[in-house]
Amino acid sequence: MDVYLLLIGDEILLGQVVDTNSAWLGQQLSLHGYRVVGKMAVPDARADILEALDLAARRARIVITTGGLGPTKDDITRGALAEYFNSELAFHQETYERIAAYFARIGKPLPESARMQATLPEKATLLPNKVGSAPGMWFERDGKVLVSLPGVPFEMQYLMTEEVLPRLRQHFPGKPLAHRTLRTAGEGESTIAKRLETFEETLPAHIRLAYLPSLGQVRLRLSGIWPHADVPPEADERLRAEVEAYADQLRALLPDLIFGVEDETLEQVVGRLLQERGLMFGSAESCTGGYVAHLITSVPGSSSYFSGSVIAYSNELKMKLLGVRDETLTHFGAVSEETVREMVAGALDALEVDVALSVSGIAGPAGGTPEKPIGTVWLAVGDRTRIVAQKHVFARDRIKNIQLSAIFGLNMVRKFLLNAL
Amino acid sequence: MDVYLLLIGDEILLGQVVDTNSAWLGQQLSLHGYRVVGKMAVPDARADILEALDLAARRARIVITTGGLGPTKDDITRGALAEYFNSELAFHQETYERIAAYFARIGKPLPESARMQATLPEKATLLPNKVGSAPGMWFERDGKVLVSLPGVPFEMQYLMTEEVLPRLRQHFPGKPLAHRTLRTAGEGESTIAKRLETFEETLPAHIRLAYLPSLGQVRLRLSGIWPHADVPPEADERLRAEVEAYADQLRALLPDLIFGVEDETLEQVVGRLLQERGLMFGSAESCTGGYVAHLITSVPGSSSYFSGSVIAYSNELKMKLLGVRDETLTHFGAVSEETVREMVAGALDALEVDVALSVSGIAGPAGGTPEKPIGTVWLAVGDRTRIVAQKHVFARDRIKNIQLSAIFGLNMVRKFLLNAL
Repeated sequence: MDVYLLLIGDEILLGQVVDTNSAWLGQQLSLHGYRVVGKMAVPDARADILEALDLAARRARIVITTGGLGPTKDDITRGALAEYFNSELAFHQETYERIAAYFARIGKPLPESARMQATLPEKATLLPNKVGSAPGMWFERDGKVLVSLPGVPFEMQYLMTEEVLPRLRQHFPGKPLAHRTLRTAGEGESTIAKRLETFEETLPAHIRLAYLPSLGQVRLRLSGIWPHADVPPEADERLRAEVEAYADQLRALLPDLIFGVEDETLEQVVGRLLQERGLMFGSAESCTGGYVAHLITSVPGSSSYFSGSVIAYSNELKMKLLGVRDETLTHFGAVSEETVREMVAGALDALEVDVALSVSGIAGPAGGTPEKPIGTVWLAVGDRTRIVAQKHVFARDRIKNIQLSAIFGLNMVRKFLLNAL
Repeated sequence: MDVYLLLIGDEILLGQVVDTNSAWLGQQLSLHGYRVVGKMAVPDARADILEALDLAARRARIVITTGGLGPTKDDITRGALAEYFNSELAFHQETYERIAAYFARIGKPLPESARMQATLPEKATLLPNKVGSAPGMWFERDGKVLVSLPGVPFEMQYLMTEEVLPRLRQHFPGKPLAHRTLRTAGEGESTIAKRLETFEETLPAHIRLAYLPSLGQVRLRLSGIWPHADVPPEADERLRAEVEAYADQLRALLPDLIFGVEDETLEQVVGRLLQERGLMFGSAESCTGGYVAHLITSVPGSSSYFSGSVIAYSNELKMKLLGVRDETLTHFGAVSEETVREMVAGALDALEVDVALSVSGIAGPAGGTPEKPIGTVWLAVGDRTRIVAQKHVFARDRIKNIQLSAIFGLNMVRKFLLNAL
């Protein structure tokens, strides 16, 4: 089933905002068996919107528009939609009260524009927006569906997930689909693809494997679509079971790389493992400059397993706060196995934690040498009985070297906690 | 002069990549006096590309396409462009050699696909790509211009800046333009707009002020366009001087908010101020969990003014590492003026730095109370003679509360160094 996306708003054309909505929509729709066949961005101008609605409806049976529903004068989508569907605009008391209740909840005065936001095409089925003011709208005509959503990403995502996708599935019932995403860290796409060559050959045609890489991580997405014309009542369940069986095969093939499923992050998984074991964690960071601590503390509730960190950028602080010995720094340098081992031991004492991670490296752009080029990073993780150190050479730009160091470091903590390091 | 953008590639429609190119293009083009009137994304399919080229050329005199020039089979833009311009595809030896030299430079073997990438429409003026393999292409027909660029952001940006914008300016000579962007931190768009009401009324019609907000920061962009029909030789210079005079007025009106110009970040400015004064800096962080240290150390060369930080998430570490007194925590709580003041004093000693920033707050989603709701943050900055503390209630989600705390904290450091706090 084809979908056309229509992005409404001058701010997108002027480049004042980066359009993240259509990537999210493209992903979600394809996960649910719909295919985005095109998208178009138009300014906040009645004629452009009407022309684009016509074009989009010729291309696809489902049209989704985002943006142009806000309270400012620029937003004329409501009027254009009313004209397009030969519908009157009418004041909608229930929506007005919902908007008023929303502003009361966030403790802000109800703006005058709320009346305008509650004035909507009569032919629209309204999709209540619990996380913002403008409701979504659902229109049907000639066997086609048009959905109008606000442009604010989390409001759009809420309405898509809670209202639009379930209705689309009901309106255009398709074949059963099943997905499972496994998350890996520590190897690139090509290395993983090599290890999965045989696995991929055994995959039946109706099960697909997609590689979705990001910095230091690759998501592996298995997608299954029901392979036969007849769809028995238990098809959903059987397909899901089949996809899960292949996911288990992947887990067995990549036990060292797979850390989680779906939207779980590495820092969440590390946090969960620490919490389950009742362990307190801390970091001793040089080149990552607090980025490990930032990732850990970006997870709600992290205070139950994170005590704190020492960011020791200078050698003086490595000695003073982490007890790294002067001779170690002199003989082996700050970026060395010996230093990161002493940093872990020092962090366990200074932070009074059960497990500590240390990082010392050359983030760049300056500081590289022939023996220790830019991107050289030593990492160590340990507790009071055991410390494990690893060296990596990331050889990327400063920010990426910092991020990769933190990702690889967290993955070391994960493996250490699982006794797999 | 109107521009239409055409994004080519399945990956954009499937949501596998977020389209950052069109925001960048929208900004750059509008800075140079061009206006993006629409954009469209199409799959890697000949018919779709041809239809979109037609539509785009009807809408604007300049069409810019991105994507579809890579080495994989999916990329059929070259063929579609040849067909659209009734041109033959021909092997282009010079381009082939350029691609070969590029791969030699990055130390990778020349792929077979290089021949395909060097097979191009004969009617194209080739735009040499020094930072990648696929060249850009420039076509002219019926007084209109079509430019085809690769989709890789830094290659696209290189070709736009070095080749396309200068050619466009020559091809469609426009009036002189001048811009100046001033960066502010610490107040929202509406507060700034109120303070600039009178200023905006005095602006002549040919000088415009745009507000470009992001989290905790607003960029103010002044744009001037030469106001008369005759353009004397010194027009560029006079217009630039006029825009700079208004920028100076803005600086005088918002001395507390403006921290830099153009692409300067707050952490770069703080770093520069520290370096100029020969001061060493460190942070004592609770709720920001290392994010302040991360921002500071994301700037190359920060080791010359940043010694380190103590991330004291637990009260025990606030006492042990920063010398915060037990009674202070008991009487006033960890999120209090008294605590952040003691954290600064403790950080100056523990980190042996000249200036320190401390942060303690409730990032959420848990931990709020009626007296100290989620988002309540105390910040303090100081040296050995003076400590200044401030309270803010950001009331956003966890990540935004963390980011806003760090931005406001860095801005306090900046003002402290300028004796403006």
